[in-house]
Amino acid sequence: MFKGLLSVFLALVAVTSIMAKSEKTAVKQEKRVPQTLSRGWGDQLIWAQTYEEALFWARSRNKPLMVIFHLDDCPHSQALKKAFAKDKEIQRLADEHFILLNLVYETTDKHLSPDGQYVPRILFVDPSMTVRADITGPYSNRKYAYEPSDMNLLRNNMERAKTFLKTEL
Amino acid sequence: MFKGLLSVFLALVAVTSIMAKSEKTAVKQEKRVPQTLSRGWGDQLIWAQTYEEALFWARSRNKPLMVIFHLDDCPHSQALKKAFAKDKEIQRLADEHFILLNLVYETTDKHLSPDGQYVPRILFVDPSMTVRADITGPYSNRKYAYEPSDMNLLRNNMERAKTFLKTEL
Repeated sequence: MFKGLLSVFLALVAVTSIMAKSEKTAVKQEKRVPQTLSRGWGDQLIWAQTYEEALFWARSRNKPLMVIFHLDDCPHSQALKKAFAKDKEIQRLADEHFILLNLVYETTDKHLSPDGQYVPRILFVDPSMTVRADITGPYSNRKYAYEPSDMNLLRNNMERAKTFLKTEL
Repeated sequence: MFKGLLSVFLALVAVTSIMAKSEKTAVKQEKRVPQTLSRGWGDQLIWAQTYEEALFWARSRNKPLMVIFHLDDCPHSQALKKAFAKDKEIQRLADEHFILLNLVYETTDKHLSPDGQYVPRILFVDPSMTVRADITGPYSNRKYAYEPSDMNLLRNNMERAKTFLKTEL
């Protein structure tokens, strides 16, 4: 009986190691899917690559900028992304009225983290280059965070961001 | 005869305007191809999105960073991109030994433009965060420019960048 179990065990080990080997080879040879700038926040939207690029577009096209900070391995970011990507009105507003940027790394501009660096968080920047720290989500401890249930507030905030700050610039 | 020509003309106008209309609708409804981070410089390579991200990777993975500045509407950039993307040895070196970043907008780091902001230009950054201003192309007036015929030199320069600067950091 013991001998029988041992040979089953050895056979299992052999099969597992063959499977592991072939899987390793497969991963190595597999073609990578090209990375997209949208990172899943709306493949049909046009995304800026960097903050510098986004600021240039915002100024030259006179549109507000929406910056989304997120992380691939953060479940809150992933849940917000899903809600954001499937909300047709948000996608339409974003497409027609905003310069868009999503970032997984912080920029050197401290104005983009008025109450700290956390994810997910969404900041708006006026075409006058002013960060709209006044446009906040519903949470007092993380003012720029949103959850999937906050899409109504996010839509309203997008509408607010469309009304530009009066500026002498 | 005149009447016959006129009706043919009117029919043509009608068909043309219908075609124009349906084309317009088609363009509007056409799905956009998601933008890729590679922008054609190697879809199988892994690209950083921003300079901050690239520096973080270079430092944490102890790999040199290669920054390619280019523009979509610059024929020199396009020609270099084509040569870069189809050079198998350059693609292999890039994949195995470098953190990669291609940018169409300048960063705020003046060290990345030692002799001015022009495209195309390629800069290497040591994992110690030092821009390798010593690794140059063949042109004295634009030291960091390369042309499609300079792929041998670019490969050699990539090999040089793999040899890290000695640093106290």
